[in-house]
Amino acid sequence: MPYTYQYARPALTVDCVVFGLDDEDLKVLLIQRKNDPFAGRWALPGGFVDVGEAPEQAARRELQEETGLEKIYLEQLYTFGEPGRDPREHVVSVAHYALVNIGSHRVRAADDARHAGWFPARRPPPLAFDHKKILRMALQRLRGKVRWQPIGFELLPRRFTLSQLQRLYETVLGAELDKRNFRRRVLKTGLLVETDQTQQDVAHRAARLYRFDQRKYKRLLKEGFHFEV
Amino acid sequence: MPYTYQYARPALTVDCVVFGLDDEDLKVLLIQRKNDPFAGRWALPGGFVDVGEAPEQAARRELQEETGLEKIYLEQLYTFGEPGRDPREHVVSVAHYALVNIGSHRVRAADDARHAGWFPARRPPPLAFDHKKILRMALQRLRGKVRWQPIGFELLPRRFTLSQLQRLYETVLGAELDKRNFRRRVLKTGLLVETDQTQQDVAHRAARLYRFDQRKYKRLLKEGFHFEV
Repeated sequence: MPYTYQYARPALTVDCVVFGLDDEDLKVLLIQRKNDPFAGRWALPGGFVDVGEAPEQAARRELQEETGLEKIYLEQLYTFGEPGRDPREHVVSVAHYALVNIGSHRVRAADDARHAGWFPARRPPPLAFDHKKILRMALQRLRGKVRWQPIGFELLPRRFTLSQLQRLYETVLGAELDKRNFRRRVLKTGLLVETDQTQQDVAHRAARLYRFDQRKYKRLLKEGFHFEV
Repeated sequence: MPYTYQYARPALTVDCVVFGLDDEDLKVLLIQRKNDPFAGRWALPGGFVDVGEAPEQAARRELQEETGLEKIYLEQLYTFGEPGRDPREHVVSVAHYALVNIGSHRVRAADDARHAGWFPARRPPPLAFDHKKILRMALQRLRGKVRWQPIGFELLPRRFTLSQLQRLYETVLGAELDKRNFRRRVLKTGLLVETDQTQQDVAHRAARLYRFDQRKYKRLLKEGFHFEV
């Protein structure tokens, strides 16, 4: 990094909360730090913003460098700037978050990361810096998002059963939902289109397959809705 | 500001979008810049974050220094960090926003501001930097907020008529609302408590006074709701 004589300013970093879904749980992508401070401790992937680099671009770069994850859609979460949050100096961090399908991405540690891996998002190991606080806010945002924006479109197969959709909501929310209420409410959004197909190759009675109404989905993404769960 | 030899980093600033309500319109607080770049141009109040100062604290300080406004509740909006947004160098700005009652605050220009004043939020004068973009996002956030969080509690008298509440929503949304629908929907939230009092000293038929259910209000602030307007 080029050194220069300038008036003292806070350092600027980015952090990434990448949530991952598999069949069992909501996970979060963590790296094990190679260097001090907090060497050996697990942390959110992230790092310093270069001059001339937009924060979102820096988040993508750091994520790719440290975990190999790329081409995912990151959203800005919040900027954490309390002076004491980094023992080295005053570091302001623009946090981002994302929700991906674990099966479609491979992660591998590199750069400043000794290891990289998926951990239960609600029971993570001890984290470096204020990353527990950042993770908590990201979980809260994700739960809020589920209530006023449709999610899951990118995380489910193109045609899916209502049970698959309910499982996804339950995983994100970390709570069991009443089957009948869930179906009534999700159908009421008008977001789902019933297809004329049913599940194949299942031992039990084959369930109806649905797809998302793409136009309605895009409209609700923009306008928001209220899904009481 | 103290100069130091450090690796080159983006500069960090804050900007404040303070919305104000008066009887006629939704306004935004602007200052006229004294110095280049954009000397003489109107802009959002803001400035550089000092080392050791949290961004929200910097936003409060700059707002107070430039406009005299203090003791208001600022919320973080978004961090704008595209490299080209400031002609001097790469400046990353943490934008904040607030909604206040114009009548309860007095503003006066000072520091880097030649003038300070309230302007129509939807028809502002030409603005410096990317402040038009920041203002647009703040307007969008405010509109969204109205739909999923109760607002207005701090902006109305303790007891108010449904017409006063409707007027507030119409001003924030910049749209006329159907009286009957508005009443039905706002009463359905369970947020309002009918008092046994009516308006005093009015020529027309005195309207019923309502108050907010504070417990319910706090719960909805936290959990969110959906108010179709």
